[in-house]
Amino acid sequence: MATVNENYLKLQAGYLFPEIGRRRRQFQAGNPDAKVISLGIGDVTQPLAPAVIEAMHKAVDEMAQKETFHGYDDGGVGYEFLRRAIKENDYSARGVDIETDEIFVSDGAKTDIANMQEIFGLDNIVAVTDPVYPVYVDTNVMAGRTGPSAGTGTYEKIIYMPCTAENNFVPGPPAQRADLIYLCFPNNPTGAVVTAGELKKWVDYAKKHKAVIFFDAAYEAYISQADIPHSIYEIEGAKDVAVEFRSFSKTAGFTGVRCAFAVVPKQLKAYTKNRKPVELNPLWRRRHCTNFNGVSYISQRGAEAVYSTEGKRQIRRTIDFYMNNAKLIRETLSTFGYTVYGGVNAPYIWLKTPDGIDSWEFFDLLLTKAHVVGTPGAGFGPAGEGYFRLTAFGGTDDVKEALQRIKAVS
Amino acid sequence: MATVNENYLKLQAGYLFPEIGRRRRQFQAGNPDAKVISLGIGDVTQPLAPAVIEAMHKAVDEMAQKETFHGYDDGGVGYEFLRRAIKENDYSARGVDIETDEIFVSDGAKTDIANMQEIFGLDNIVAVTDPVYPVYVDTNVMAGRTGPSAGTGTYEKIIYMPCTAENNFVPGPPAQRADLIYLCFPNNPTGAVVTAGELKKWVDYAKKHKAVIFFDAAYEAYISQADIPHSIYEIEGAKDVAVEFRSFSKTAGFTGVRCAFAVVPKQLKAYTKNRKPVELNPLWRRRHCTNFNGVSYISQRGAEAVYSTEGKRQIRRTIDFYMNNAKLIRETLSTFGYTVYGGVNAPYIWLKTPDGIDSWEFFDLLLTKAHVVGTPGAGFGPAGEGYFRLTAFGGTDDVKEALQRIKAVS
Repeated sequence: MATVNENYLKLQAGYLFPEIGRRRRQFQAGNPDAKVISLGIGDVTQPLAPAVIEAMHKAVDEMAQKETFHGYDDGGVGYEFLRRAIKENDYSARGVDIETDEIFVSDGAKTDIANMQEIFGLDNIVAVTDPVYPVYVDTNVMAGRTGPSAGTGTYEKIIYMPCTAENNFVPGPPAQRADLIYLCFPNNPTGAVVTAGELKKWVDYAKKHKAVIFFDAAYEAYISQADIPHSIYEIEGAKDVAVEFRSFSKTAGFTGVRCAFAVVPKQLKAYTKNRKPVELNPLWRRRHCTNFNGVSYISQRGAEAVYSTEGKRQIRRTIDFYMNNAKLIRETLSTFGYTVYGGVNAPYIWLKTPDGIDSWEFFDLLLTKAHVVGTPGAGFGPAGEGYFRLTAFGGTDDVKEALQRIKAVS
Repeated sequence: MATVNENYLKLQAGYLFPEIGRRRRQFQAGNPDAKVISLGIGDVTQPLAPAVIEAMHKAVDEMAQKETFHGYDDGGVGYEFLRRAIKENDYSARGVDIETDEIFVSDGAKTDIANMQEIFGLDNIVAVTDPVYPVYVDTNVMAGRTGPSAGTGTYEKIIYMPCTAENNFVPGPPAQRADLIYLCFPNNPTGAVVTAGELKKWVDYAKKHKAVIFFDAAYEAYISQADIPHSIYEIEGAKDVAVEFRSFSKTAGFTGVRCAFAVVPKQLKAYTKNRKPVELNPLWRRRHCTNFNGVSYISQRGAEAVYSTEGKRQIRRTIDFYMNNAKLIRETLSTFGYTVYGGVNAPYIWLKTPDGIDSWEFFDLLLTKAHVVGTPGAGFGPAGEGYFRLTAFGGTDDVKEALQRIKAVS
């Protein structure tokens, strides 16, 4: 008799974005003439950079000729040309020494973050921020590292670290033991960033407790302030304790192209139950190459073009476009009397709901009165209650229109 | 203290293809003038079909305009346009009724087969053929469904079902209990196919024992004989017991483009320990959408073009090209006195090593004397000892040259 992985049965049924979609469709069905504007889901809207388009056309042409055809990539870890461009531009240029065989190219940061936990034991204690990107938690539930649902959108055995206005949405290390720590900066959903000094405390904690940090830097391209670290490896000693995740999705609009990478330093180790150190780079290589056959050659050539002089200039223009939206949302909502966070180093604006109403109630208010869709903070965890996320990925006219409508109902 | 998944430490160090690469490089270093011909690794060499190239150029152009730009796909399960083409061409056309929401588009059949086991409990007994595609076994070792290595390239707790000349390389169901059964037809590495009657026995066994069959049909496009099933769902009742894996990699040369799909029928169930049935389609949907963000839009449009009238004609021409190589290898080696299997419904030729020498010894003989690389059967499992795999994916001139050289050393 084939049995199921019963950990899946612990998962809470109502996932955030399907519930948002359901409410939106229900409203639209009853109000077919309403023009609903979405500042909800974090998907990009602007076209790819011309340098990327050109590189992908060239790659498609190569696939049409026997002499230049490409089959499986170099062992599934990404072509050397792309890993070298990543090393030089994302790391060497910031004074960080990462080797090409510490870089694993993949189809998405979500894939990497979801799968990385597999090379770790089931006895590790997981720590996440609250609010949190749900994938960090759900994949640990599915693997069996948690207890049952605690009834409040949380699970037993996971350490939740509240991110609040009081701690500037950046928690410090917990008092208790944590073995696998998920950090995301610039943060989705709060838009908060971490300073080098704050991140150093995490690296020190991990060193002291032999913990491993999963550092999700998918939004690093949106950092506008100087002195904010773009990589955890800018912190001394981080290569001993951290895996880093990056993506071309938000950096270069690759949500439909699929290319990302993870960095697993060769000096990074975890332990057997008998405290024998084990290098994680070869363990992840085994996982990656056994379960995966590499990223599309065409996508990899597109990603390489992101690092060309033209490519860099072009993607910067698109990021500036989104960040102008962010500024507009942030500043306009402030003038309406809203308390607003984020939007300076991230494409997310995190606002306090007015008059202390709960975040789903505010969602329904904006949907039904202003015909604007956002994301209720409670969907990201209990500490997100009373907050609301807006994204800067819309068109500027839509953003302006949405803001006027929000004003009218405020 | 972060601990590792100690199941990884059970994995045997020497993986087949790296070892082949090592021996080849060593020989080439000592014999720089030798022109080595590879009939070893199963990667395609012919360019993509013009219809696919045209569709991908068009898709790249769409990504360059705001109005036609595509971000995340429909929930990560593949665009409706592709799932509909799969349903109609791969299933309806063969009289099989599969719905589009039973089809999950992915980046590779290896990815799907490697990950599918995650939705099952760790107490399931796994059965594989011997010889076997190593991914089936390794992913179950990593998950913890096996004991330690049994020292002969096998692992404790796995049921190995020998494929031999006596059973025509198609084993029947085992006498003992098996819960998760991996079958691959047309088979890699033996090139064997299964008749409807033989497959029916497996479906009946799975029904009787409430087992689940993982049916890997990555090579179905190479079937040339009538009456050989292309899909397990051609067998009555199979939708109650089987998941099917398909890929565009070998069908249409997509090894560097990345697109595949898995079929999880809605009526397929496994059980809790308390024998409560659980539908697997929503469980896999949860796994797929939590850990994965969909396939490149460009690759999906390329895959759609495989089903166009022109696309079908063009990919058929390439498959015929490979299968002519297969015929040439099979028939020529027979005239040299070799005992040869496969190569009729699969791009793999499985030959008995001459004079009973072992398969790594034959590998070294061909490499050093004929400068031809193949794959030793023992690398696929103990029952592969005394056999050798050649692939039909080379150029015809190389195949002819390799055959003449093999003749000279035979």
